[in-house]
Amino acid sequence: MPLRTVDWVDGKLVLVDQTLLPHELVMLEPATVRDLVDAIRRLSVRGAPALGVAGAYGVALAARLHPPVSDPAGFDTAVKALRTARPTAVNLARMVDRVAAVASDDPSRALAEAHLVRDEELSASKAMGELGADLVQALCGDGPVRAMTICNTGGLASVERGTALGVIQTLHERGSLIEAIPLETRPLLQGSRLTTWELERMGAPHRLIVDSAASYLLAQGVADVVLIGADRVAANGDTANKIGSFGLALGAADAGVPFIVVAPESTVDPATPSGADIEIEDRGAAEVCAVGDRAIAPAGTAAINPAFDVTPVRLITALVTNRRVVRFDLGEALAPPGSENPLG
Amino acid sequence: MPLRTVDWVDGKLVLVDQTLLPHELVMLEPATVRDLVDAIRRLSVRGAPALGVAGAYGVALAARLHPPVSDPAGFDTAVKALRTARPTAVNLARMVDRVAAVASDDPSRALAEAHLVRDEELSASKAMGELGADLVQALCGDGPVRAMTICNTGGLASVERGTALGVIQTLHERGSLIEAIPLETRPLLQGSRLTTWELERMGAPHRLIVDSAASYLLAQGVADVVLIGADRVAANGDTANKIGSFGLALGAADAGVPFIVVAPESTVDPATPSGADIEIEDRGAAEVCAVGDRAIAPAGTAAINPAFDVTPVRLITALVTNRRVVRFDLGEALAPPGSENPLG
Repeated sequence: MPLRTVDWVDGKLVLVDQTLLPHELVMLEPATVRDLVDAIRRLSVRGAPALGVAGAYGVALAARLHPPVSDPAGFDTAVKALRTARPTAVNLARMVDRVAAVASDDPSRALAEAHLVRDEELSASKAMGELGADLVQALCGDGPVRAMTICNTGGLASVERGTALGVIQTLHERGSLIEAIPLETRPLLQGSRLTTWELERMGAPHRLIVDSAASYLLAQGVADVVLIGADRVAANGDTANKIGSFGLALGAADAGVPFIVVAPESTVDPATPSGADIEIEDRGAAEVCAVGDRAIAPAGTAAINPAFDVTPVRLITALVTNRRVVRFDLGEALAPPGSENPLG
Repeated sequence: MPLRTVDWVDGKLVLVDQTLLPHELVMLEPATVRDLVDAIRRLSVRGAPALGVAGAYGVALAARLHPPVSDPAGFDTAVKALRTARPTAVNLARMVDRVAAVASDDPSRALAEAHLVRDEELSASKAMGELGADLVQALCGDGPVRAMTICNTGGLASVERGTALGVIQTLHERGSLIEAIPLETRPLLQGSRLTTWELERMGAPHRLIVDSAASYLLAQGVADVVLIGADRVAANGDTANKIGSFGLALGAADAGVPFIVVAPESTVDPATPSGADIEIEDRGAAEVCAVGDRAIAPAGTAAINPAFDVTPVRLITALVTNRRVVRFDLGEALAPPGSENPLG
């Protein structure tokens, strides 16, 4: 069985500790909600879909430790801590709320719902891979392609396979990938640490670049398509994703290279009208002034460290979800204005 | 006296070893041309103007060790090694050629010319600072400004003061700088290691960012102007500079923020018609896959590592040299077509 980033095994929540990759593959087993919240905050588990599944299992854990009927205050505190552990990804709060809504003093209720969240995530990753690979081949012709991507959007950001990197995996499995070009993704280097590790495991050719080389290399024609994930897609299509995504979109637009967002429907947030309404987390100076424990700036240097940015829909060719492809470049809209229930 | 990055002191060439900053300030004294070429190759001395001065003194060193009349083969080999130690910066080859042209078996001839190169560089930095600060204040209004910059273009890239960072220093001395926002500048982190160190020494407020945050922060309005240096300016104004400059220019253009190139006349190369004619150095995978000696990617990961990129003149508001301001945004041209001597 392929490695699962988040899973429930023998009555325990089991997570890959992503802070130790690519050097060590270590599994975490958070026994309390506080342990899980800490793991989320220090990015041992990260990636919007993986956060959703982890949050769902976190509520199952809470329902066992603080039965919602007999200890409602303990349960509510645990749920609140989980849903606010990271502010930008909509999946976390949404999946926490979904499982909390069915939790009862029978802990198997919450656990069954969390398993459902996980299984839906597994199916969604497969569906996005197929729809995304079909779209890339439609846009780029039938020949094999070179695909650029940022951050980590593979199995490690999900349960298996993932979003944008799942599309790249599907292209590779179809024999349609020449190479992947991952951006290293400062400050936390998810691209160099995690995406390269996943590409190597899947046997896909790849060459790593620093983030700031992307625009120039796109202008030089080294990639046929750019694929990114999303932490939140607003109703108008504006997309919050890892810092650097907006600059990458500007580079793709200038070079005329298709720029595709791949994210499950659970990432689409009709309650957020546009990118201007998305809260962007600033994670402080420490991540910028050091790489791991190695200082790279004078002690005490101040920094601005937005963890995400917003790519306006004008720069996005298409959104691929597990259910549909929305071609913004052809004038398609995600949420028709005035629609009561834009996601059907 | 302020620190000089490259100088001739008591009969010896003395250089700041920039690979050890910001942790240690160590001076190198290369005694042979080979030592100097090695120092240039491993970036102990870097920055186009500093490379020009170092190259000039390198020829003075060569003239002493291999007198050009009595040991012409030795002298020619040394000059060739110096002029090709880095391919992208035009200053290095140009200043090497200039001093070599006057070298004789009297080593004081070459040394006097090298001193002239250094002194011209000192004057040029002062002049660029004044012209650049005047332009920024003309473009941004009389109030104090927030200035974004990439790589290191300060005294460390020059002898004192520098180019783009010299303009920021002049703005600071005029009381017209709110803060500087340096990009860290992967892969070699000249921004986080060197520019922050220089800003701290000059007492200028600053906040460091990762390279990929620049476009988003410009869109958010955090900077009033972007100032960069140059390794080579082609006859049409296209500018080769540190990798990331092109992406930064795309971000500035999208946000409507002025994007100014600051470089001495010696960086302008009328023999290079456009950016397409500029050779871009690829420095290999090691710099991308590690930060210092810390591996950040799986062993054996391949990379693409262009050290520079080319910003097309369409994205450049103005070029500031030590002699003039060329307002590309107003339709001014660097080299009028058909001009015999475009640099006057």
